[in-house]
Order: sequence, then C-alpha cells, then structure tokens
Amino acid sequence: MLPFRQPESSPEEIPVKNNRPLKTPARPFVRLAAISALLLAAAAATMAQSLVLKEQGSFFVGGHSVYTSALTGSTTGFLGTGINTGNITVDQMYVQYQIPEGADTHVPVVMVHGCCLSSKSYETTPDGRMGWNEYFLRKHRSVYLPDQVSRARSGFDPTIYNEIKLGKRPPSDMPEIRTATHEIAWTLFRFGPTMGKAFNDEQFPVEAFEEFGKQVIPDLNGQLPAVNPTWTNLSGLAIKLKGAVLMGHSESGFFPEQSALINPADIRAMITIETTCPAMTPEQITKLSKIPTLVVFGDHLGDVPSMPKMWPERFEACNQFVKQINAAGGDATMMQLPKFGQFGNSHMLMQDKNSNQVADLILNWIDEHVEKTK
Amino acid sequence: MLPFRQPESSPEEIPVKNNRPLKTPARPFVRLAAISALLLAAAAATMAQSLVLKEQGSFFVGGHSVYTSALTGSTTGFLGTGINTGNITVDQMYVQYQIPEGADTHVPVVMVHGCCLSSKSYETTPDGRMGWNEYFLRKHRSVYLPDQVSRARSGFDPTIYNEIKLGKRPPSDMPEIRTATHEIAWTLFRFGPTMGKAFNDEQFPVEAFEEFGKQVIPDLNGQLPAVNPTWTNLSGLAIKLKGAVLMGHSESGFFPEQSALINPADIRAMITIETTCPAMTPEQITKLSKIPTLVVFGDHLGDVPSMPKMWPERFEACNQFVKQINAAGGDATMMQLPKFGQFGNSHMLMQDKNSNQVADLILNWIDEHVEKTK
Repeated sequence: MLPFRQPESSPEEIPVKNNRPLKTPARPFVRLAAISALLLAAAAATMAQSLVLKEQGSFFVGGHSVYTSALTGSTTGFLGTGINTGNITVDQMYVQYQIPEGADTHVPVVMVHGCCLSSKSYETTPDGRMGWNEYFLRKHRSVYLPDQVSRARSGFDPTIYNEIKLGKRPPSDMPEIRTATHEIAWTLFRFGPTMGKAFNDEQFPVEAFEEFGKQVIPDLNGQLPAVNPTWTNLSGLAIKLKGAVLMGHSESGFFPEQSALINPADIRAMITIETTCPAMTPEQITKLSKIPTLVVFGDHLGDVPSMPKMWPERFEACNQFVKQINAAGGDATMMQLPKFGQFGNSHMLMQDKNSNQVADLILNWIDEHVEKTK
Repeated sequence: MLPFRQPESSPEEIPVKNNRPLKTPARPFVRLAAISALLLAAAAATMAQSLVLKEQGSFFVGGHSVYTSALTGSTTGFLGTGINTGNITVDQMYVQYQIPEGADTHVPVVMVHGCCLSSKSYETTPDGRMGWNEYFLRKHRSVYLPDQVSRARSGFDPTIYNEIKLGKRPPSDMPEIRTATHEIAWTLFRFGPTMGKAFNDEQFPVEAFEEFGKQVIPDLNGQLPAVNPTWTNLSGLAIKLKGAVLMGHSESGFFPEQSALINPADIRAMITIETTCPAMTPEQITKLSKIPTLVVFGDHLGDVPSMPKMWPERFEACNQFVKQINAAGGDATMMQLPKFGQFGNSHMLMQDKNSNQVADLILNWIDEHVEKTK
C-alpha cells in the first residue's frame, strides 16, 4: 500500500494563479453551491441529532388503597410518631412516555422489561448506545415504558416484610425476592458458553458487562397474586391509549397475551420476546388469534453447556403457540433472528450491538402486520 | 360588585357602519398586523409545545460487586437451578437525563427526590401538569434525575431479607422499610390541617391526592451505611458533569451538603428544599461556605395542629445554617416562599399549582448567584 501523501496543492489553491483568482464564471456559484450544500448538510445533521418531542411525562395505571397495620416494622412507627397503621396504595403501575413528532400515523408501543430489571432495559445500552425507546421515537412511534408492579418506580406493598420484623408472621412467610447474579446472567442471557467467555459472534457488548450488572435489581413478583396486576394494568393502558402494541421480554414475554386474555380491547399487536409460551386452551387460542402476534428469539439457543435444553424447549413451546394461532386463522410470526439475517444475538437483544437492526425487523413487522391492516 | 356584562357590540363590529366598513386607512394594516401577530403567536405556541432535545438517556454512578450467599431466600435458588450464591452489584445510583437545545451556557441541575418517593416527584404532577424536570428543560437547563440508592431503578441489596427467610438471621435484624400512609402524607406534607381538609389557600392539587398516593413507594434507606452511597454518588455525578447544581428535597434536602462534605469538586450550587439542617462544625461550615447555597421552605409551617413545632423547628435550624454560612463569608439565601410572594405552598412544592412560579424563583437565584459568578 502506498503511504498517504498530502496533495502538493490543496483544492482551495487550484483556482488561484499568480496570486489572482482565475476568472472562471462558474467558480463562485460552484463554491456557493458547495457552501450551501455543506450548510444544508450541517443543518440536516443537527436536525437528525435533535430529538423533537410533542409531549412527554409519566403517570400511573391501576392501583388501589389498602389498610396496613405494619407501616414500618418498628413499634414506634413513622418518624417516631407512633403511627404504624393507615392506608397505602398498592398494585399501581408507573409508566413513562414520550410522543415524537409524526406519531399520529403510528400505533404507540409499550415496552415491558423482564426479571430482575426495570424499564432501564430499553434505555441507553450498557455500552452507551441509543436504546430501543429512543430508536422507536426516532421512527415516529410513541413509546411507553412501564415498571412492572412491585418493581422500581411502581413500588411494592411492604406490609408482609414489616409484619415479619414485628414478629406477627414467621420468616418463612416472606415472599421470594429474586435477583440474578453476574454468573447467572452471563450464561442464562447467553452472553457466552461460560462465565467471562463470549461466543465468537456474540452481539451483546460484553466489554460493558459491569455496567449491565448495575441495572439488575431485586424482583418482588413473588408477592403478587396469581393474576398479576401488571397484566390488568397493561390491558388498562392499551385502552387508555386507544390502541397499543404491547411488547414483553423474558419474564414479561407472555404478558401481552395474558393482558389480552383479561381484555383484548385496543391491544393492536402482541410482541413476545425470548420467553416460554405456556400451553393454551382452544378457547384461549381463539381469543388470542384475533390479534397479530410476533415472537422473537435470538441466537445460540442450544449453545450454553450448563443449560443445553432450556432455550430450545422455550423456543419449541413458542413455535407450537405460533402454529396454533395460525391454525385458528390468526396472524402469528416466529422471528428467529438468524433466519432473518441477524446472528449472535443474546437474550438481551434490545441491548445487543445490532439492536437497531433487530428493531428495524420489528418495526417492519408492525408496518406490515399491524398498521397496513388498519 | 357589578355583574359581568357582554359589550353590546364586539370590537370587530365597531368600524362597520350601515353594513359598510369605515374607510379608515390604518384599519387593514391594523387587521393584517393583528393576523400576523396571531400567526406568529400560533407559530410560537407550536414551537413552545415541542420539546427539542440534543440528547437524552440514562446511566449509573457508583456501584460495586459483592458476593451474596442468599440470592433468593429459597434453598432451590434462582429458577430452581439450585444456584443461591454469586456476585451482585450494590450501591449503584440510576440517573436519567435530558439535555435541551441551548443548555451549553447553563449549569446542569440534578434533582433528588425525598422519602418514600422516586424521581417521579419531579415529572408530571399528580394533576397532570408539567413537572420541574420539563420546566427546567424548557428554560434550557440539562436535567439529571437520580433514583436514590436502594430505591426504584437503583435497586437494593436483597441479601439480608433472604437470609432472614432462610433462617440464617433473626427477623429483628430486618432493616426498617418505611412508607408514608395517605393520612401521614396529608398532614406531614401540609396539604391541610387534618386528613381530607385543605388549607384555604392550599397550592397542592388536593383533587389529585389519589394520584399522588400512587407515587409513594417503600423506602429502604434504613439498610444503608452511615455514609449514604447516594451522597458519594452525587459527588461523583457532579464531577462527571464537570459542574452541577445539586438539589435535594425533604429526606434528601441536605444531600447536596453531605455530598460537598465528601468532595466539593464541581458542585456549583446546593439547593436544599424543605428539610432539617443538622448542626455543622466550624470546619464543615468553612468547607460548605465556598459553594452558593439556597434553602427553600413553603407556607403553613406552623399550621398543622398535630405537628405545630416540627416544621418551624426545621425552618429555624436551616435559618441558623444560612446565617453560619454567610458569617463565614459564604453566599446563602433563605427563600421562605411567602416572603417571596408565593403563598399556600405545601411540602411538595414542585407539584403545587404555582410550581412554575416557584421554579422561576429558583432559576433566578441560579442566574444571579451561580451563573453570573462564572
């Protein structure tokens, strides 16, 4: 290869001769046009960088008052005033939202996070790239980010823990508090075959694994009733929005379907990412088959030696679900990413290095299966 | 008082006589000017409605790995795989941020929430108005919203709860989990003298009290060490931002000062809202006096019959602090809102009906005491 050489004269010097600009009539226009083009490009770049929102904010869906007789777990009570009883709100779901310019012609997208995580999952990726929330906004979709009931900004009912502290209940009554260690996350989320080792074509930004560890938080869903209030609240959210695409991931992967079984009104599509699909009755399949359904799985499903069957079994259960929906006249798609040209995706595919490409596949599916059938 | 009367002819009809417009030469210009003004106003309103962001996202400050031997509190462990030990990340602080157009010439503002709340405090108000986060953005300030360590999206260390469930520790070891009942919130936050009754000039939107109740969530600060990791992380955040105004409220009201005592670097101002000010040593006062300080209190401090002294005592402690800072050559301001023309403010003054006016007072203080001294 030849070494890079500076040109002997810069393009700026060419039209000058004997310290006098060449009188080429076209020249100033060419230069002006070039400057204009540059200015326009700079303006366009600035426009592209800026995010223009029509509206943003946050609100709650659901929630109701309950009386608690164990407000703090100390006999003195709140701030030492002796008050240890009263009414608190439980089962509410916090939702943060942004509406970009041009969203009127698109269906809002609700993105629900998985186990031991919050809706941070869909924000800035661990290695600092744009998350799906902003990518979808830039594709003119309104985005709604709930924290599951009993997690993060949605809060949880502290009564049972305080009752145990006060000796009113045995410790064995304590609900399961679950979190994922770094070691569990690495293999379960398919960052690689064993802790610290990545797959050759791994798309998860493993160099930012430490940052990922910070978004893993305790999961208190073990204290929720059999009908998870998040399902009911997601159904309520779709109705409030007068139509929404519900997207779930991992623990919440089948929440769109669970919400639709409670009330299918205004659920315009269900997107189920990287989860297991439970067996459904024919009646349930009939009900769900009215709503377009997309199921998404990443790569390396059978490549983790410590859990060779778990992901293939989940994938197969969802394949079965997709077939049942289609057999009932529905419109269900199984999007196994390697079959759609995306390789090396982990369980956290919304944070993978090709997250925008995966998002594009989902956006195209929404365009073709949800919005064209309006 | 005279009853309101409709004028017999509208201003538009006045120049018309005998169904013929008066030939007043100035008239068409006046009308054109009026139309232009209307169009300009409409355009300005549209511009004002859109929120233009240069950047947004979220990240973590602080956090480190610890080994836990009680991952779930069940002997089977995570997902029934028997894994109940491993490394998790604790003490990390989640921060959500937005940078608007024109923020380059202003110092970023970090808004920290109080007890039993998340940074939802600063978002959409319970009655659906713009929160301080967006109001400050529209005044071209970058806004950073942390969730305190052990709260909301920052997560908490679940080990001790699981150890109690597993019988490895007695229930009395459980840290205090605190929340505020509706009854406590109403009086403690000075929505009115007794539950359900508002002060005559109350600024808190009491009609939306039910919505407010949904943002009250359990507070696990009782499990944190004496040096709260949130203080250290706020100091780290100021350094990361190369300069920030730290604002705290209620439980976190004195966090800006606590952070500055750990490391004053890049803390450009401390805003302490509605809290108590602990006694400081002369050395601490000297250290803090280097940073402009604003203390804010609302109205009705002594007007809640069940707690006639608590707020006046807190106010007096902070008055003392302000005097000490000024005596040491510092620049501290006590902003008791009624003395600044704002009446009827509650403890949740960032959600009160005059929240924008209160924000303006704070923005003006930043302009005069922080940014003009650059």
